[in-house]
Amino acid sequence: MKRHILTTALAGTLVLAPAVSLAEETFAIAIHGGAGTITRESMTPEREAQYKAKLKEAVDAGYAILEQGGASMDAVIAAVKILEDSPLFNAGRGAVYTWEGQHELDASIMNGATLEAGAVASVTTVKSPIALAREVMENSPHVMLSGAGAEMFAKQQGLDLVDNSYFNTKSRYEALQRMKEQVGNPQDKTAWQQLPEEYKHGTVGAVAVDKHGNLAAATSTGGMTGKRWGRVGDSPIIGAGTWADNSSCAISATGHGEYFIRFHVAADICARVKYLHQDIVTAGDTVIHDVLAPVGGTGGVIIVDPQGQVHMPFNTEGMYRAKRQAGQTAEVAIYKN
Amino acid sequence: MKRHILTTALAGTLVLAPAVSLAEETFAIAIHGGAGTITRESMTPEREAQYKAKLKEAVDAGYAILEQGGASMDAVIAAVKILEDSPLFNAGRGAVYTWEGQHELDASIMNGATLEAGAVASVTTVKSPIALAREVMENSPHVMLSGAGAEMFAKQQGLDLVDNSYFNTKSRYEALQRMKEQVGNPQDKTAWQQLPEEYKHGTVGAVAVDKHGNLAAATSTGGMTGKRWGRVGDSPIIGAGTWADNSSCAISATGHGEYFIRFHVAADICARVKYLHQDIVTAGDTVIHDVLAPVGGTGGVIIVDPQGQVHMPFNTEGMYRAKRQAGQTAEVAIYKN
Repeated sequence: MKRHILTTALAGTLVLAPAVSLAEETFAIAIHGGAGTITRESMTPEREAQYKAKLKEAVDAGYAILEQGGASMDAVIAAVKILEDSPLFNAGRGAVYTWEGQHELDASIMNGATLEAGAVASVTTVKSPIALAREVMENSPHVMLSGAGAEMFAKQQGLDLVDNSYFNTKSRYEALQRMKEQVGNPQDKTAWQQLPEEYKHGTVGAVAVDKHGNLAAATSTGGMTGKRWGRVGDSPIIGAGTWADNSSCAISATGHGEYFIRFHVAADICARVKYLHQDIVTAGDTVIHDVLAPVGGTGGVIIVDPQGQVHMPFNTEGMYRAKRQAGQTAEVAIYKN
Repeated sequence: MKRHILTTALAGTLVLAPAVSLAEETFAIAIHGGAGTITRESMTPEREAQYKAKLKEAVDAGYAILEQGGASMDAVIAAVKILEDSPLFNAGRGAVYTWEGQHELDASIMNGATLEAGAVASVTTVKSPIALAREVMENSPHVMLSGAGAEMFAKQQGLDLVDNSYFNTKSRYEALQRMKEQVGNPQDKTAWQQLPEEYKHGTVGAVAVDKHGNLAAATSTGGMTGKRWGRVGDSPIIGAGTWADNSSCAISATGHGEYFIRFHVAADICARVKYLHQDIVTAGDTVIHDVLAPVGGTGGVIIVDPQGQVHMPFNTEGMYRAKRQAGQTAEVAIYKN
């Protein structure tokens, strides 16, 4: 963030060399693995250790790229791929089941320097949806592809394809059965809305700022347990689940996607930073706690700004999350306190 | 807009009865039928008359509902359905062809009073995509449905289904052939970007404010001529092609959808109204002319605010458009000047 540092330097004592040196040390990454009813009581020590180890592995992988002067885009992709490949999280390998017992995955990515973006919705055979989102951004004339067409594009680009059963896991299958029992009649809109959080949530994401001051955001998910009719959540919606703009901030969201679309959460937080000149703590807390929570919009976001600040607000019991800022060690957390 | 009028009344002389009476007369509707290279030279008098007649029919249908005290949601749906049913516009009946020679339709709707929204992407057999978007909003637990799943939902809700060939028209088929010749290699991203505007554009939409001060926005499209791989444009993306919020404005967009997603055009214009306190003329012109035009983002938007003001900026040669405000006759226009 040379521009910021120079501005600071000009405002105070004009010592250019240390400022540039300091600027090169400004970078940060934050990741999430979903928000929801995650309490100490519901967790075993073994399971908690598994989650923490995988979160640390992912945030450290992204950090290593940033530390070597790599691009924030590469850092967020590296972190998200590790989370996608783990069955612990609802994305890639550990994706939840649709009502019909299949898996339909969504993902999106955005480059804060260029506002270029890529997104895929309802893909069923792509091993890494976030890798496909990046291909869409870089190698197609479009921003968003969906369904079988998106898979045809993935095949042409030489991405890894898998059978849909690759995404099968016992725990997600059992969650689908419990969810179906609770809903009863699938046409009952109220029954869906009253479902416990555990069925509505689960997404992975990463945001980063690199040494060049460029922001990036990436989000990937299996969606909502028992989703029907080709449902698309907020994760592949640019402005809802993902947003990155060097002039404000980068965001990846996780939560009850329908609310995150209706309140275009990611872009709104950045709009508050850009237009109201709020810092990311104020803007993020306002949207998550004052706008979403009162209407029942459960979930959270991770935010990074061009100065390398990180904020990770959520209005649920917990959110799998980690951050690592320049020169510091990784901080991994799950619960509210 | 009782709240606004009461505020005005309180600020000036407190005369409550006339204020409420005046409030009941505040309503307006605006519609568009797409933006692009539409010049007087490229139009015959007969064709111009056809477009103008259909635009007038649509805006008058919405106006009649508002005049009788109906909801803005009903008004925008009525107007959009008339445009969908006409082969003149790239939505419903007159939808363009995909690369594979089929039709994939997108639509979305938003209620400014509740921020409820509904969207459908890549549907192939639903006669009125905007009617389906409303069903999603009102009768599903989701905001956005796509593909075959969305059609299953449409069938369950008893909507009119048609064979995909219902959307066949000679002129759109010829446009696909011309487009394919120009692109040559479909993998060539640059060739796509350099395509003339006529292939990238075409959408219909409506925005309205009713006597109760409630805003609504609706957008429907066949997408981009020759689109591939299940491409989704801005029309079904809440915040990109459609946005409505009683606290700022209602917007429907038309243009090169990829840019409208990346710059989340509809929500950004309303964010400028809400956070920077710009009027809709300033906010709309800034985004269309100063943000989008310099990067090649061609298109336009229609905007209505809670006070019944209407603005319809575009950065192309023309935009099919019409508006009708309380007590006035319809104004229909096509060209820039």
